Parts: sequence; C-alpha cells; structure tokens
Amino acid sequence: MMKFAAATAQLKRKLGARIVRTDGAARREASFDSSKILFDAAAVIRPRREADIGVVLALANRHSVPVTTRGRGTTLTGAAAPVRGGWVLDMLGLNKIEIDGEAGMAHVQAGARVAEIQRAAEAQGWFYPPDPSSKEHCTIGGNIACNADGMHGGKYGVTRDFVVALRGFLPTGEAVEWGTATKKFSAGFNLRDLWIGSEGMLGVVTGAVLKLIPQPAERFTLLTSFRDESAALRAALTLFRARVQPAICEFLDRESVLCAERAMQTTIFPGQAGRPVILLELAGSKLEVREQRAQLLAWAKENAAGHRIARSRDEAEQLWAVRRKCSGAMFELGDAKLNEDVVLPMRSYVKFAQFLGRLKRESGLHVPTFGHLADGNLHVNIMYHRADPKETRAAEKAVDLLMRTVVSLGGAISGEHGIGLAKTPFLRIQHSPAQVRAMRAVKDALDPRGVLNPGKMFEVFHVWKHPRLDVHLPWDHK
Amino acid sequence: MMKFAAATAQLKRKLGARIVRTDGAARREASFDSSKILFDAAAVIRPRREADIGVVLALANRHSVPVTTRGRGTTLTGAAAPVRGGWVLDMLGLNKIEIDGEAGMAHVQAGARVAEIQRAAEAQGWFYPPDPSSKEHCTIGGNIACNADGMHGGKYGVTRDFVVALRGFLPTGEAVEWGTATKKFSAGFNLRDLWIGSEGMLGVVTGAVLKLIPQPAERFTLLTSFRDESAALRAALTLFRARVQPAICEFLDRESVLCAERAMQTTIFPGQAGRPVILLELAGSKLEVREQRAQLLAWAKENAAGHRIARSRDEAEQLWAVRRKCSGAMFELGDAKLNEDVVLPMRSYVKFAQFLGRLKRESGLHVPTFGHLADGNLHVNIMYHRADPKETRAAEKAVDLLMRTVVSLGGAISGEHGIGLAKTPFLRIQHSPAQVRAMRAVKDALDPRGVLNPGKMFEVFHVWKHPRLDVHLPWDHK
Repeated sequence: MMKFAAATAQLKRKLGARIVRTDGAARREASFDSSKILFDAAAVIRPRREADIGVVLALANRHSVPVTTRGRGTTLTGAAAPVRGGWVLDMLGLNKIEIDGEAGMAHVQAGARVAEIQRAAEAQGWFYPPDPSSKEHCTIGGNIACNADGMHGGKYGVTRDFVVALRGFLPTGEAVEWGTATKKFSAGFNLRDLWIGSEGMLGVVTGAVLKLIPQPAERFTLLTSFRDESAALRAALTLFRARVQPAICEFLDRESVLCAERAMQTTIFPGQAGRPVILLELAGSKLEVREQRAQLLAWAKENAAGHRIARSRDEAEQLWAVRRKCSGAMFELGDAKLNEDVVLPMRSYVKFAQFLGRLKRESGLHVPTFGHLADGNLHVNIMYHRADPKETRAAEKAVDLLMRTVVSLGGAISGEHGIGLAKTPFLRIQHSPAQVRAMRAVKDALDPRGVLNPGKMFEVFHVWKHPRLDVHLPWDHK
Repeated sequence: MMKFAAATAQLKRKLGARIVRTDGAARREASFDSSKILFDAAAVIRPRREADIGVVLALANRHSVPVTTRGRGTTLTGAAAPVRGGWVLDMLGLNKIEIDGEAGMAHVQAGARVAEIQRAAEAQGWFYPPDPSSKEHCTIGGNIACNADGMHGGKYGVTRDFVVALRGFLPTGEAVEWGTATKKFSAGFNLRDLWIGSEGMLGVVTGAVLKLIPQPAERFTLLTSFRDESAALRAALTLFRARVQPAICEFLDRESVLCAERAMQTTIFPGQAGRPVILLELAGSKLEVREQRAQLLAWAKENAAGHRIARSRDEAEQLWAVRRKCSGAMFELGDAKLNEDVVLPMRSYVKFAQFLGRLKRESGLHVPTFGHLADGNLHVNIMYHRADPKETRAAEKAVDLLMRTVVSLGGAISGEHGIGLAKTPFLRIQHSPAQVRAMRAVKDALDPRGVLNPGKMFEVFHVWKHPRLDVHLPWDHK
C-alpha cells in the first residue's frame, strides 16, 4: 500500500484533484531536483492560493507526512528532493510580481522567476542584483531558501541583503509575517533572516518584499589575463586594496580557460592559450564608471599579462561567453562533477591557489576552478569518471580535503548553494557540536513534528554513492 | 539576605574580585540604562577575556541567576537594565578594533565604541555607515543587540547589513561562531542574524566582523524648507521616484524646527520661522556627487519654499546643528518624553503626517517629530508634564494610538531602538499570537533556564508608571 495514502486522500478531498496531483507523471517530475537523484513523492500539491498551504501543513502535522517545498528545482544540492517521500509543495503557480517604483521595492510571490523580477524592476529604472546562473528558471523562493547569489555579491551583497520582509507559514501551518515593507525593522526576534537560507526546513515562504537599487546607467567590461593563478589572485588583491569595487570580478583558472577555449575553438588571448583570466565589470552612473575605468586600466597595464576592453554591449557579451562556456565544457574532463561553492577570505587567496595546485597533482584529477573574487566565492569542480573506481575514490578524498582546507583557511563550505543533501558530510567541519545542537534545537522548536524537508542538513548523505538520472534539464550547462 | 549571594560568592572565587564587583558604586552604575529606571544588580562582571563569559553563564544556568549584558547603556528602551536583578555583564573592557584594509572588514570586540570603529576604518579609506546619535559612547555590541542605525539607513542599510560574522556564547555558556570573515556564507541555519536584534536574550556577542565600504570622497549638504509637513513629504517622494538616493535625508516638522530655533535663538530661513525642513546630504565619488547635485538643486528649486547650500564643511556643520539641537530643546515642551522610533512605508507618509496633525490637536500635547525619510524611520516625541495627571493620561493614550496607526499603515513600531521594556506594551500590535509563540519557542530552545535578559520583550512593562532617576548622562541631549 502506498505510504501516506490515507492522508493524501484526505488532502485531495479538501483541496481537490487539480491541486493535489497523484498521477505518475506529476509525481516523477517532482521526485528529483538538479542533483538528479530520484526519490518517490506520494503527491504533488500545486496551491492556487497561499492559504492552501496552511491546510497542507495542518494535515501533514496531524499525519506526520514529510513536506518538501519546491520552486523550479534548479538546486544542485538535493535540497528540493523529497528524500523521505511524502508531499512536494510546488510553488510555481504563485508567481505575482509588483514593483513599487517610489519605495524601490518589489512585492513578489515565492514562485516568481528571478530574471522576471529583474526585468520588471529594470522597466522602472530599478535593479535587483542577485543573479544565479539559472536565473531564467529559478524562483525567488528557492533563492531565499539557499540564500543564493551569483556574480554581483562582492559589491552588492547576496539574496539576504535584498529581503526586506517575508510572509508564509510556520511548519505547524500558522500564517506569519516577518518584517514590514520598510528598510528598518527592530521589533522582536528576527525570524525573517532565520528563514533565509534555512532550505525550507523552518517554514514555507509564500511572499517577499525585496529591496531594489537604482539601475546602473553605465557598464564597462574588461578581460585580463595572467601568467598563473597566484599572479591573478595577487593582482586582484591589489585592486581591492585600492578600494576599487567592480560590480563583477570573475576569475577562471587555467583549466577552466582551457575548457572554454576548447568549447569555443579559439584562444582568448592570441598566443596565450590556457592563461588564467579575470573578467571585470564596472557599473554605476556615467561619471562614476568613467572615474573607476581609468583606475582599472592603469591597474591592468601594471598587473596583467594582457587585457582587452569591450567596446560595445555585443563585445561584452562575447567576453561573457568565455565564462559561460567553461562549466559545460568541463564534462570533457570527466562524466561526473563534484561542484563545490566554497568561500575564502581574501587573506587566504594565494594559499588556497597553492593548495589547489597540490590537490590536482596529488589526486591526479582535473579540478577546474572559477568564481567570484570580490567575495571569495570559488566554484571548485572535481571532475572524474563515475565508472572508474580509482577516480571515484580520489574524488571523494579530494572533496573531503578541500572542505577541511577551506575551513582551516577561515572560509565557508558553501557561499550560495547551501547544504541540502550534497554537503551534509561536511557540515560538522564547519560547525562545532554546540553550533549544530543550537541549530537542531531551533528546528525542533519550530517544527516539533519534523514535517518540513526532513532528512536534510543534519543527516549525512553521500550523493556520490547514489545513481544519478540521465536527464537533461533546461538550465544544464552544455 | 541578598538574592543570588551564594552563586555570586562562587563566581567571585572563580574569576576574582577585580572581575566580579559587588560594591555599591559599581552595582548602582550598572543598575540602570538610559531609560533611567533603577533596578538592583547583585553583581557587575567585567570580563578580561572572552572565555570568562563561558564561566559566568555556566554558573548562571546552574543557579538560575539572571544575566543582563551591557555595553555603555545608552539604550532608551531599558533593554540593558537588570529588571530581575542578578548579574550585569559589562562588556566595555573587551574593546579591540582591527581593520583589514584589503578585505574591507573590521574585526572588533563587542565593547568597542562605534565612533572609534568609524575612525579606525576611515584612517584606511573605509567607511562604516551606521551612526546612532550616541555613537561616541555606544558600543558595537549594543548596536548589534538592537540592530541600531541612524541617519544613513536609507542608502546604506542598518547594523544588520554590515555584520559579516559573530562569535560569542550561547545562553548555556557554550562558545559558538556564526559565519566566517567572508561576504558569502550559506552553510547551516543563520543564527548570526537571529542574534542580531535579539537584545541580549539569545546569546552573548563577544566579537564581530563588520563589512566596510569605500569612504566617500565628496559630500554635498543642502537644507530645504517647505510650506507644511505634507508638502515636505510629498517633495521627498518626488525625489525618491527620480532614483536620487541621498546618503542622508533628515526631516524636521514644524514643532521640531521651532524647538531648534528657540535653542539657537535664530530663524533657520529668515522670514520663515517654524517651517518644516529637510536636510540632505549626498555622498560618493567627486563625479558621482557632482552629477546628483545638479538633480538635487533642480528638485529643490521646483519643490521647496527655500533652500540653502553648505559651501564648506563648517557651513555643513552649522546646518547639522539644527538637527542636533532639536532633541534637547524639546524639554521646553514638557519634562517627560515618550520617544518612539516608528517606521512607515513611503506610500503611507502623507497619511501619517495627517494622523500626526490630528493627534496633536486631539491630545492637546506637543508631538515634535523628526527622522530619516529615506527609510521612513520617524522619531515621534510625545511631550508631557509628569506631574500633570491629565497630560500623563493623554500621553499614554497617544502612544497607544500612535502604535496602532503605524501598524495599520504597514509600518513598524521600532526601526532601530528595539523593544526592551519600553515597547513591550505594543509588541502584540505588531506581531500575531503565532509570531510571538514562534519567538518564544526559539527563546526557550536556546535558553532553557531563561537566564539571559529575562523579563524583556514578551512581558508587558509600562515604563511611564515607574519613577525615573534624575541623572544627567554624557550622551543626553541638552
């Protein structure tokens, strides 16, 4: 007999069969996320009204049914996968967006797509900076769940820095609002920020008020190359010490550049194949960008092996293609990837580059690395062939060593992806037993029946030991 | 027999009599904060090392001794007053400041003064924006406890927006660290932000890593006057709709202006006595300020009854004197003040100005109001004479009506002061029973013995029914 069948039947009677879906196709679609590990959802719930969610949670508590909230499922960590089965709450239908052009705020529902929010804001002269690479697909609810970001974090901040207020439901099914549509709020404990980054384990977000900033009038894009990784990182530190704050400062190491060059069948800097690059973008008012451009060019002349200015938005797009091509092209180096979004403090950049060199040599694996230098968020991609037991063991060993090194250098095991299932083996490298106990105490206090996204964060799950679906998702690179 | 005497004697044996003070003078000094209501501390603890605090809390849990953490005690809400007696933890001795000029971060201990942090940052070309009016006295630990801010919130954000990482102790005495010295961190529940604004009830902060931004090279200060309050607020909204973001945008209503003019024995705009004013400051790079200055002047010519540019830093200082004088001068209007730091969303500014007009007429009280228009944080000062029972009753009624109106207009009962004791009668206007239950569940989960700052936030306390000490504190206005 199907697990949770009685509770599911009861829910279907309450909300109707158009909202509560139990057909195989709907269930399968909701049974995996971008981690591509398949579980088995008993039902998919597609609420029409936010109040439906209160009904779902009340029943889930009564019958101890796991509930996993899901946006578009672009997360790489497994955070949106129903690891304990039960019900998947699909938020895509709740997707309203309203811009308050006077206050510079967006009022959105959790299922709204991030790129749609950006376009709606831009139409009124405002800018919402967080931009995960899946922004055309992913939802703001998912971005809030893992405190997502992208290339703009160093100058502008992460999702958390743009959330003014949240509304939604406690795990027990009670409607709550955290904060008001104002830039200041100091009244009571801050459960708004406790919800942000809690990966759907402490509540269901249904709506958010987001802060917007004025749309930059001007951009200036510059591509620079360097002799080696250490030279590139040292040069970036020189720039930051001079208080230049590029809106974007993307680093690609030698292996990432080689991947991009193979994919594009060209050499980025003629005669300098496989040189690490830093791709920079200034953004701001016309005069502001003019002022910083002069500083940036002087820096490039002094520190870079080569540099190239984008003369137009089209040329800038061509430079950005380098960055976008590298992720997909990495699958030339292996059919499996452990993609880790670690964060390093600036003082550890050069030491970390040296560590990565040793890791590549000693593991015998390709570990192309790229990322956001203004905030230290580096994407380290450990490539291996799944059918090769030696490579698989080497990859497992490498990821563990990576995480221990990151933490010993004062860094974070995740900057924007979160823990989900994929990073559960490393949580206790980052957090002491007292810290984990405090987090679990908060979870138990707010979700006494443990219905919201159980099995995540605190329980160790080795993603690399589980088979992965061979599916191509719309936001997959390559 | 003195309450908690045995536990205090035991603590003294562990940490020594230089750290654990029980003499009358030390105890009295720690027995009230800027709310000036006297309680009775059993001992004052002045830790030399952060680890001392773990010892204090372990013992406090064993013997159920209340512990109230205190910086300089500048809070107006009573949040630092030992309402249940017990031990006061005085953090002033832990006051180290180190600037990381490369990363743009300040590493500070909780007892460091905010103005000292700003000066240390500025010496290296960096800027820490939050600036409570008591910044020469108040500590960063206190600022974190109430999520303090000041005039820069609209453009730059509040204390929370500048806290990168915290370390300290759980109520149970275990050392913890929330976050790393990096701009991104998405690993585990966000107890860092749960601590910020929790008014010393969920943990003891001993150290923080703060984000800095580049020091603005240029400032431009402009004073503008308006026919009446509604005209001033409408004009400000016009400015925000045009995406101009002044670093400071301070509003003073007619009564506040009259107070300042009496105190300064001059008329701000000749022939326009008592006209509401808005004081604006642009900040940024030279070119950025030049660009916005032209927009701002065009706006002033079109919308203001009068305007005056500061030609130098000295002249700017004279303009700022207007703002600073008004608070102290208000005591000409009454010997008691209910000072409320409410927040309104922009869409409610004009409605709120109309409400304030009615409140003044109907209560018969003076209610001078000033504040930060770019974030809607208005300081509403209900003035009355304590010895006059009719005025006292009118003030009590007015503050209750104020809070209900603010919340019904979509605003917050506090933007930067917090709840403490003073706002406990209004917490449930802002928060639903489910929201309060969730907050209390979190409190009980992290502080099962209830030792940290008991009696605050959730239990109703009417500050106006308690006698106030007749003392002058160094940061008092006038």
